[in-house]
Amino acid sequence: MFRHTKLLQCEAKPERPDAVYARKLQELIGGAYGEMTVTMQYLFQGWNCRIEGKYKDLIMDTATEEIGHVEMLATMVARLLDGAPAEQAAAAAKDPVMAAVLGGMDPQQAIVAGGGAMPNNSQGVPWNGGYIVASGNLLADFRANVAAEAQGRLQTARLYNMTDDPGVKEMLRFNLARDTVHQKQWLAAIEELISDGLEQPIVPDALFDEEDQTHNHTIWHLSDGTDGDKGGWVGDGTDLEYLHDPEPLGGPATAPRPNPALYATYSPTMDAVGTVKGKAKKLKKKAT
Amino acid sequence: MFRHTKLLQCEAKPERPDAVYARKLQELIGGAYGEMTVTMQYLFQGWNCRIEGKYKDLIMDTATEEIGHVEMLATMVARLLDGAPAEQAAAAAKDPVMAAVLGGMDPQQAIVAGGGAMPNNSQGVPWNGGYIVASGNLLADFRANVAAEAQGRLQTARLYNMTDDPGVKEMLRFNLARDTVHQKQWLAAIEELISDGLEQPIVPDALFDEEDQTHNHTIWHLSDGTDGDKGGWVGDGTDLEYLHDPEPLGGPATAPRPNPALYATYSPTMDAVGTVKGKAKKLKKKAT
Amino acid sequence: MFRHTKLLQCEAKPERPDAVYARKLQELIGGAYGEMTVTMQYLFQGWNCRIEGKYKDLIMDTATEEIGHVEMLATMVARLLDGAPAEQAAAAAKDPVMAAVLGGMDPQQAIVAGGGAMPNNSQGVPWNGGYIVASGNLLADFRANVAAEAQGRLQTARLYNMTDDPGVKEMLRFNLARDTVHQKQWLAAIEELISDGLEQPIVPDALFDEEDQTHNHTIWHLSDGTDGDKGGWVGDGTDLEYLHDPEPLGGPATAPRPNPALYATYSPTMDAVGTVKGKAKKLKKKAT
Amino acid sequence: MFRHTKLLQCEAKPERPDAVYARKLQELIGGAYGEMTVTMQYLFQGWNCRIEGKYKDLIMDTATEEIGHVEMLATMVARLLDGAPAEQAAAAAKDPVMAAVLGGMDPQQAIVAGGGAMPNNSQGVPWNGGYIVASGNLLADFRANVAAEAQGRLQTARLYNMTDDPGVKEMLRFNLARDTVHQKQWLAAIEELISDGLEQPIVPDALFDEEDQTHNHTIWHLSDGTDGDKGGWVGDGTDLEYLHDPEPLGGPATAPRPNPALYATYSPTMDAVGTVKGKAKKLKKKAT
Amino acid sequence: MFRHTKLLQCEAKPERPDAVYARKLQELIGGAYGEMTVTMQYLFQGWNCRIEGKYKDLIMDTATEEIGHVEMLATMVARLLDGAPAEQAAAAAKDPVMAAVLGGMDPQQAIVAGGGAMPNNSQGVPWNGGYIVASGNLLADFRANVAAEAQGRLQTARLYNMTDDPGVKEMLRFNLARDTVHQKQWLAAIEELISDGLEQPIVPDALFDEEDQTHNHTIWHLSDGTDGDKGGWVGDGTDLEYLHDPEPLGGPATAPRPNPALYATYSPTMDAVGTVKGKAKKLKKKAT
Amino acid sequence: MFRHTKLLQCEAKPERPDAVYARKLQELIGGAYGEMTVTMQYLFQGWNCRIEGKYKDLIMDTATEEIGHVEMLATMVARLLDGAPAEQAAAAAKDPVMAAVLGGMDPQQAIVAGGGAMPNNSQGVPWNGGYIVASGNLLADFRANVAAEAQGRLQTARLYNMTDDPGVKEMLRFNLARDTVHQKQWLAAIEELISDGLEQPIVPDALFDEEDQTHNHTIWHLSDGTDGDKGGWVGDGTDLEYLHDPEPLGGPATAPRPNPALYATYSPTMDAVGTVKGKAKKLKKKAT
Repeated sequence: MFRHTKLLQCEAKPERPDAVYARKLQELIGGAYGEMTVTMQYLFQGWNCRIEGKYKDLIMDTATEEIGHVEMLATMVARLLDGAPAEQAAAAAKDPVMAAVLGGMDPQQAIVAGGGAMPNNSQGVPWNGGYIVASGNLLADFRANVAAEAQGRLQTARLYNMTDDPGVKEMLRFNLARDTVHQKQWLAAIEELISDGLEQPIVPDALFDEEDQTHNHTIWHLSDGTDGDKGGWVGDGTDLEYLHDPEPLGGPATAPRPNPALYATYSPTMDAVGTVKGKAKKLKKKAT
Repeated sequence: MFRHTKLLQCEAKPERPDAVYARKLQELIGGAYGEMTVTMQYLFQGWNCRIEGKYKDLIMDTATEEIGHVEMLATMVARLLDGAPAEQAAAAAKDPVMAAVLGGMDPQQAIVAGGGAMPNNSQGVPWNGGYIVASGNLLADFRANVAAEAQGRLQTARLYNMTDDPGVKEMLRFNLARDTVHQKQWLAAIEELISDGLEQPIVPDALFDEEDQTHNHTIWHLSDGTDGDKGGWVGDGTDLEYLHDPEPLGGPATAPRPNPALYATYSPTMDAVGTVKGKAKKLKKKAT
Repeated sequence: MFRHTKLLQCEAKPERPDAVYARKLQELIGGAYGEMTVTMQYLFQGWNCRIEGKYKDLIMDTATEEIGHVEMLATMVARLLDGAPAEQAAAAAKDPVMAAVLGGMDPQQAIVAGGGAMPNNSQGVPWNGGYIVASGNLLADFRANVAAEAQGRLQTARLYNMTDDPGVKEMLRFNLARDTVHQKQWLAAIEELISDGLEQPIVPDALFDEEDQTHNHTIWHLSDGTDGDKGGWVGDGTDLEYLHDPEPLGGPATAPRPNPALYATYSPTMDAVGTVKGKAKKLKKKAT
Repeated sequence: MFRHTKLLQCEAKPERPDAVYARKLQELIGGAYGEMTVTMQYLFQGWNCRIEGKYKDLIMDTATEEIGHVEMLATMVARLLDGAPAEQAAAAAKDPVMAAVLGGMDPQQAIVAGGGAMPNNSQGVPWNGGYIVASGNLLADFRANVAAEAQGRLQTARLYNMTDDPGVKEMLRFNLARDTVHQKQWLAAIEELISDGLEQPIVPDALFDEEDQTHNHTIWHLSDGTDGDKGGWVGDGTDLEYLHDPEPLGGPATAPRPNPALYATYSPTMDAVGTVKGKAKKLKKKAT
Repeated sequence: MFRHTKLLQCEAKPERPDAVYARKLQELIGGAYGEMTVTMQYLFQGWNCRIEGKYKDLIMDTATEEIGHVEMLATMVARLLDGAPAEQAAAAAKDPVMAAVLGGMDPQQAIVAGGGAMPNNSQGVPWNGGYIVASGNLLADFRANVAAEAQGRLQTARLYNMTDDPGVKEMLRFNLARDTVHQKQWLAAIEELISDGLEQPIVPDALFDEEDQTHNHTIWHLSDGTDGDKGGWVGDGTDLEYLHDPEPLGGPATAPRPNPALYATYSPTMDAVGTVKGKAKKLKKKAT
Repeated sequence: MFRHTKLLQCEAKPERPDAVYARKLQELIGGAYGEMTVTMQYLFQGWNCRIEGKYKDLIMDTATEEIGHVEMLATMVARLLDGAPAEQAAAAAKDPVMAAVLGGMDPQQAIVAGGGAMPNNSQGVPWNGGYIVASGNLLADFRANVAAEAQGRLQTARLYNMTDDPGVKEMLRFNLARDTVHQKQWLAAIEELISDGLEQPIVPDALFDEEDQTHNHTIWHLSDGTDGDKGGWVGDGTDLEYLHDPEPLGGPATAPRPNPALYATYSPTMDAVGTVKGKAKKLKKKAT
């Protein structure tokens, strides 16, 4: 169960409205690596965590913090939109600066939300549950968490460079810091899982005996770049090797013969592997 | 530019059809961590890679391999569907085993694809571009790659347990092996990026001076679990600490006063912070 | 900012696992009227509420409760999946009851979530932000809230009839009760908005003078049912009337002449309203 | 079965083209509360209505009207795009007004539709069936209808303020009027359902005896606003009360122990409630 | 503007309910090639048609018919669901036939629609506007129409084989017939466009002089199949030829150097084409 | 299995960056008829093709080429974005040309992709698998291919007119040529299928005897245009006729009586066809 205080985790006060920037910030709310994603990703991971204790508690601490980040960004967007042009007359359309602002705005922030944030990314695509992962395997999921926090801090840094509003930059400095913490904690938690003997670096920690033993250490050279074998991933001290002239292991990619009840194209003169021998002669009722 | 051979990277021959399993395999084709995802993720990363040489070449080698994995799975699905019930009479519906098979099948594999694979996940949701990431920052992206290969191997392992068809297991053993290789190579490539001095563990490698220096090393205790500070992520030898009684840093989350042209609810008796003082007395034209 | 306790708002303990029902419950998690929807709808409404005080506080109370409802349902789903068939051998597939269970299960709950809930509806479609509304107009939004709670209670009642597990029914009885409360409170809040003079029943409370005065009180008879005028919505004491033989008010629905740079089909012999006069004679370069 | 006349329900003639506004109007065509939504919502409600007579007839009258509203808006959009810049040379890009127009246009209206409307919202997101509701319960659905018409009139009013084209405003005045009628009729139909004894205000009209009797009248104070109990929804004459210090009723939100075949993280030293006792000692095959 | 009669274009009465088949029929309602698609595709094509007369009139005749096809199918689905199991007790779950039916049903038809059709495909994915095309070029669009009617008839034929209910087959026989007519009419309309001199077979009928003259008649041999040149598409009497050993025409696919403000991975030792020369030596502030 | 060369099929070098145009080109990458669509459509058609030989080989040749077209466009987009404004200061926002560029850019190309292409259309909507078709019936699919290539060439031609950059136009001239070839080859392959006796013009080539013989040759006049019978599709020498006064063939579109367990609105006074006789008198427990 959750409780809420109206106080923001960190202040979210722009110095002045900026409707064009308000659209860009939507990426941090409802983008694939925005705050809605980490909120929902951590909540589902925590609820689905099958080990009680330090891992689950860390997940739930972080999940709960992230709901508050959506709140900070939604508040910031509403304030950036204060006084944004809601009335557009022909005259305004001829003022190039105003017209440019209108062109760069998110139309739904005005028309749909009445001057507030949307649960969308910066292009207006609604956030969706397909962005998150909660697999029940903590190592697999912590890797996804590190990846999400890395993309999140990267996007925050890019957005930090796209404004010079001191209030916005102040909030983003906080967000950058939190993304730093969260990257560190998930990296440390991955080490902890391994050090606790709960997982090993390759996920899942199983079926190594059963997996193909010939092809579980080769990198296949399938593009013509000449440097794929120049990295530290192959060579002495590694357990991977570079396969310079790989050849297909399987036979041709054929599909089974057609099922008449499904009306795939077929021929009575097809042989067993589906090759048509001579011209089809079958008689059919003509559609007339 | 690409070239294709009809030979499969690895054989994909089930011993017998299994229409219910054919639906489950769709997760590895068009799911969030299926082969369409890694194909497109690596292709876009490679095309957008701004450093020539070993990293880009490794990405393109792997991307090219993954297209062939979609091919293997699509071929396997078509073969698993061979002879799948395309005609359903009342009699069949009364045979419980047949009825169960019909109930567990992917209806679109028959109705839409004529007995073949769909570009969908196991629930029939079409694959979409929102699943992939290609940010231009190699460390951020390689982390996403490790995460994707971990989820992919995990799902493959689960599916491996859901069949006892020797032909299917044979192919999945190959897939497990490739997922092992790819996890290893991306982990190694992350080390290489750091060792080459191109990136550091926190992404992006920038703005550390500017980020909030008070809150870039604290884990906030916001859920009531008592073990969030028991992990190796805090304490001696770490640069994170656990904040047991965090308090909000910001003021109330208020939205600006309403814009009349947008018809948000407002009151002429609102004070400056939006609190309504006494009952509104405004007269309005009634809708009649 | 939010805080979390690990205790559930209400107990969520099924008496026994039921993998088929676990799929159905997904509708209450990630369906259009599931708990993710009311959570996000109320959160965005609260953050975007431009009047401080009782309305905003009620919204945030309710929003915070709803996050805990997602938690209850996700926990219930994980427990209903306990021991759900994760391994499927040929033998199992021939046991009709087991096969039916396998057919009726949500394949992603096993393959993707490892035996837990997904952020999806009962058909596996991911929840998305397009389901919610937060317009800034409280009356418009409270109506959407009443509608959402009504659909939610209706779906809960249907699901209540689809199980006889005492533990599941116990939790659903709580959910039914909360949906009753929330319907009542939003209905009362609508009355309060009107009684406070902040809104009037027709939303938005504006532009009545400007709207078309001829067509703002007529119901158009456009289907051939004969009872559309038998309801209390027309007749004495109402301000609506039934228009039995409505005629179109506008001219033909024509599109402008084609723009050559956009290659719409056009003819040099078209007249001003786009009618082709005689056969086109224009000479074109043939594609060869 | 349907029939069509080419005459528009109401004239849709702008005085001059306005490509930027044509993008905004897409919200009324393919947005969540646009005309495609009410068209499909009412059609499915009517087809699924299980009582013949006045309710069904009213639904089908309105559904049929709404198809014509999509037509009016699509026609208006095509006309607003007449002569919209289809050729963009370097010179044009340096004219700020032209550049702003180009920036504010919907690129698909030109590239995909050749100067016409798209079945999308103002951000280019395609309309989808997840927007509509047709539950079979008329009261639940009429509430959704009132909500949809309220959001629709609100968006129309906002768009009315964003243009000064007399022809556009003329059409929008008609649309405002129809939204007024439709709000009134659905509100009246709700009253009628109750007065006819078919439904009661809480939906569905069932299971009140079975729902939790302790928690079906309390509003839980879970956010720290102090005014949640100041509204008319609690206090004398209401059947709701405000619970100032609510406590969770359930136990901890735990997930069942992991299923080995699904490779969730687990430890052989876990106790019955999933707490890990001491360091895991299990031996595993190392991935090499 | 549209008008509606409650009479169906063709009878839609199943002989008996069949809840499993009701799910399959959803493909014809809300699938990519279902009736919602052709309805909306033809409506938008008609509204956006820039030539008055026979083409537009044919489009609008057909569009109007298709709305009625959605109606027939939605009615059929509701009837197929009559008495479908809405209550599921433990006992029922142990009856394999009943369990199989429950497993094969569309859960939303019961939980969300109360025993009616959904605006979804057979997998529960909502219909969306991305399925349709209305480009303003009649030949391009009529081709899409022929393609849609072909896929539609194919799916109808497959579904025809999956039932033996005389009432369902009766309706599908009508649908098959209409799909035959519509294929024929769009094929004829394509001939008419060409014969009227309005379009030529290659769409759009323009830019042939400007397109690359070397590569507008060659089929590139990029897969290793040996029969790509055995078809009538190349050889005497055709204007295409088969290029057996095609080579790339462009240079390497490189991306520009990174923009420091966007934090792509880069190295100060990169040369002009992005190759890193030696180990990067740049000093960075460490994240601590 | 696939192999890759880093050389592009055709050069993709713009003369100068153009961030606004880079957004428009996204339509050719991730739009419904962009290169991702034809890539995936042809790959799935080829993998699912059940006849070996010339048809399958042609499909795989073309599929393999299309992957390289995505590559060309992604490379072009990255180059068009070179130096695109990544930092936006207040000053820049007041330069109208710069502001217009910022307004017209795709925000995700900078924030998410770091100056590269996205797997999205020009409005930012992610590509999805619902765009493609691979039915197993070659004629149905080749028609979809002709349609896709026609829409693709049409969009390419429109975009060709929206730039005057010689490098961009050079690449588009190649794309126009390839779209010409592909339209021709699919048209020829359709002829070949018919000439080989594998298919007939109406798809699928089956059930003509069973389809409704009365309604498989009539065009229904359901819109009031007067020219629907003026085309060559009806009259002498055709097998279609125009039905001027079509009447519905079916009875009323009624839904079955409500199922009490699903809580649809119903009345105990309903007669057998669902008409309510007199006022309902049922007593219900009031929700209190």
